Amino acid sequence: MSGPAASDPLFGKRVTVEQVEEGHDLAPKFDAAGFIPCVTTDFHSGEVLMVAVMNREALAKTIETGEAHYFSRTRQAVWHKGATSGLTQTVVRMRIDDDQDALWLEVAVAGSGASCHVGYRSCFYREVPFGSAAGRPLRFTETERRFDPVAVYGDAPNPTIL
Amino acid sequence: MSGPAASDPLFGKRVTVEQVEEGHDLAPKFDAAGFIPCVTTDFHSGEVLMVAVMNREALAKTIETGEAHYFSRTRQAVWHKGATSGLTQTVVRMRIDDDQDALWLEVAVAGSGASCHVGYRSCFYREVPFGSAAGRPLRFTETERRFDPVAVYGDAPNPTIL
Repeated sequence: MSGPAASDPLFGKRVTVEQVEEGHDLAPKFDAAGFIPCVTTDFHSGEVLMVAVMNREALAKTIETGEAHYFSRTRQAVWHKGATSGLTQTVVRMRIDDDQDALWLEVAVAGSGASCHVGYRSCFYREVPFGSAAGRPLRFTETERRFDPVAVYGDAPNPTIL
Repeated sequence: MSGPAASDPLFGKRVTVEQVEEGHDLAPKFDAAGFIPCVTTDFHSGEVLMVAVMNREALAKTIETGEAHYFSRTRQAVWHKGATSGLTQTVVRMRIDDDQDALWLEVAVAGSGASCHVGYRSCFYREVPFGSAAGRPLRFTETERRFDPVAVYGDAPNPTIL
């Protein structure tokens, strides 16, 4: 697929608030950079695995193939999740929010079930203390890596940007 | 609280990838506009309720008070969720991701348990068809509003931006 054809667009035009919020047209809002945020949860555990962005092409490919595609801002390219690690994400359910500027994917993760480039199951492996505990250190909620990032990614650049 | 004091910052400096990914310092990355995305799930059901952004002040207030504060891009102000509707979100758990550029709040929602300005429980009340069904209409996964937006918000401007 080379993207939706102009005569049969996959993405509708955003015309009215009522249409966007209450209609049946997929009319996603991409930001000025062309991105829409996407939350990905594990279909089985419900855990939030990651937050990423998609561009139009990544969203179209996810819809077409049923496998999660994102846009890598580090690599500036559409990113078929798991292409390197084998830890692909098969979409079980996909939802869009009220104003259609955010997506939620529920996925089944292949292999070890990890989705984090650091090797953990979820990217959200640290808890932030709050209230009277505010300022105390982050607490790890996962302690064992599911895979060895060096073995999987070799010397590919780390995607974390300071 | 008027924000963290300079001598005792709530947010650490981002110095190395290892420190950000593996350390115990809260060192969030705010984007060029000063925002960090936040996914909010229902602590009881696990459902994704909404995706929003926080700025530094909203994050500091959330940590301090244990109630979710976001930044409203429509109103250009810190937004104490539920201040108008009464549907406040009490934070049960707060996590940050590997590169510390996204947050995950698990919350207990007051009142009717709704978090969506359209009146639904979750902002994600429509499913996007994919694979062979791609292009078919969005399917509503919630059909009953939990509250009447007109009664709650009156003639306040709708936050949806086309």
